[in-house]
Amino acid sequence: MNLVECILRGESRAAARLISLIENAGSEAVAAMKALYPHTGRAYVIGVTGPPGTGKSTLVDQMVTQMRSMEKTVGVIAVDPTSPFTGGAILADRIRMQRHNTDAGVFIRSMATRGQLGGLSRAANDVVDVLDALGKDFIIIETVGVGQDEVDVVRTAHTTLVVTVPGLGDGIQAIKAGIMEIGDVFVVNKADRDGADQTILEIEMMLEQSDSDSGWRPRVFRTVASRNEGVEGLYRGILEHREFLGDQHAPRRNGKERSRWIFRGLLQDRMAAKAMERLTPDGLETLIDRIACREIDPYSAVEETLQKVGL
Amino acid sequence: MNLVECILRGESRAAARLISLIENAGSEAVAAMKALYPHTGRAYVIGVTGPPGTGKSTLVDQMVTQMRSMEKTVGVIAVDPTSPFTGGAILADRIRMQRHNTDAGVFIRSMATRGQLGGLSRAANDVVDVLDALGKDFIIIETVGVGQDEVDVVRTAHTTLVVTVPGLGDGIQAIKAGIMEIGDVFVVNKADRDGADQTILEIEMMLEQSDSDSGWRPRVFRTVASRNEGVEGLYRGILEHREFLGDQHAPRRNGKERSRWIFRGLLQDRMAAKAMERLTPDGLETLIDRIACREIDPYSAVEETLQKVGL
Repeated sequence: MNLVECILRGESRAAARLISLIENAGSEAVAAMKALYPHTGRAYVIGVTGPPGTGKSTLVDQMVTQMRSMEKTVGVIAVDPTSPFTGGAILADRIRMQRHNTDAGVFIRSMATRGQLGGLSRAANDVVDVLDALGKDFIIIETVGVGQDEVDVVRTAHTTLVVTVPGLGDGIQAIKAGIMEIGDVFVVNKADRDGADQTILEIEMMLEQSDSDSGWRPRVFRTVASRNEGVEGLYRGILEHREFLGDQHAPRRNGKERSRWIFRGLLQDRMAAKAMERLTPDGLETLIDRIACREIDPYSAVEETLQKVGL
Repeated sequence: MNLVECILRGESRAAARLISLIENAGSEAVAAMKALYPHTGRAYVIGVTGPPGTGKSTLVDQMVTQMRSMEKTVGVIAVDPTSPFTGGAILADRIRMQRHNTDAGVFIRSMATRGQLGGLSRAANDVVDVLDALGKDFIIIETVGVGQDEVDVVRTAHTTLVVTVPGLGDGIQAIKAGIMEIGDVFVVNKADRDGADQTILEIEMMLEQSDSDSGWRPRVFRTVASRNEGVEGLYRGILEHREFLGDQHAPRRNGKERSRWIFRGLLQDRMAAKAMERLTPDGLETLIDRIACREIDPYSAVEETLQKVGL
């Protein structure tokens, strides 16, 4: 398999091609992912999440520069919610990162949230594996931080950064929404703004109240990413967490939760697709119509389908 | 079935009990949902979404008051991302709505985003059906507006409101993230703040650029929900959209996309659960371990499983 060999030799263009195949959910992608999989599990994966407007892209950009100065190679996956409206804005964000484009040690890819439920997070996970096999030391996944799907993406990272800014919404309400508990490291970006101390205090108070059973006490960092302030300290904070994880960073321990999640998601997708094939397009449409007309409830429709496919 | 009969007679307490069963994913809930389903499809469902800090809860509270003054009954489902940290804050939000608690024409329920991928959106949909069968004229689903799962919840509403505020993040960047295209009606809340005109202009410019194929031109409303300003106009805007939908509001037409989405989600869940049962707990753990150790890739593991269960 040529594509796979090229990726294992570290060729970015081959990785880009495979990622496109993944996004289009082609069967070629599946074959390549199978071949690549034994060569994964070496990269250190960092999830970066937080509400829109917190400067995540700029922060990631600076983190990349920091990692490069330590001679580490980096892959960046930016998970951008898709919108017919946002093309321009997303492009503008990405352009900021173009200074890394001529650097073979950096691979940057934006992915849009489109398609089936759960489809994006699984595709993003495949891309993590591709960049891992490509030989990147660090892989950063950046995503807008609210929503189960987005949370699932970053949850499987080794270290998860939760980013906020002073004065966003009511205090830190914006980051409380379901992502507070997945943060290993907290970042108050744009910390030159009024209220930074207050925001840090609020996060620390929340952390006090939480009962983490991992033994890790999340740390809070202040950065002004646009001026590259505090980024080196943040990087050291990430390394500290990596050290804490220790053996857990080894593929086997760390990978178990992630493996379970990927397996189940993939199994769901495949099984539903197979069942729907067996129903035939007409049979499926009739069934959906009957649900919509309240002739049959969705639960009974599913039971009927399971019987038809012999499960 | 006593619970179902009570709900069909309009008893809120019975609805609350069934919702608890739904949240715990009990088999009792399935039986009740089957029995209720033929009695659904009458309520008009409104999705309310937008970033944290935009005052969605206050706005929904005022909408409820508005609807009650028109002698309409209302159900509210607040989908709150769960967090060990947020208990207090969410409670505080909800307390604001307690003035409706003594009003039998209003039913309010918060739901936490927990559990399996897609689990919340499906549970929320079941709750819509419960409140529909309970006889509510309007059902409002409020959710934090970023994330595929959250978008799916509100997408199946008849009218979807996208809420933002002036000066949130960079212009309207906060609402561009994947939810712009699902809005039938836009609300700039806290419109007494600086920059409201600018925000409205930006939304309207974006709407200009979009090519909607539905024939509906989304409208933008300004509100100051905390002072109940603009809420009546917004309510009329919603009614306008309902009028536009016309026949599509009839259960059969409108329900098709929603039915397909619910059917597929439920089918996925059930099939994966059945397959995992057949693997036996030990077999499943061994398989997950092999994936985590890179002995087998997730795609091959799924194929192996499909063969075992005869699909």
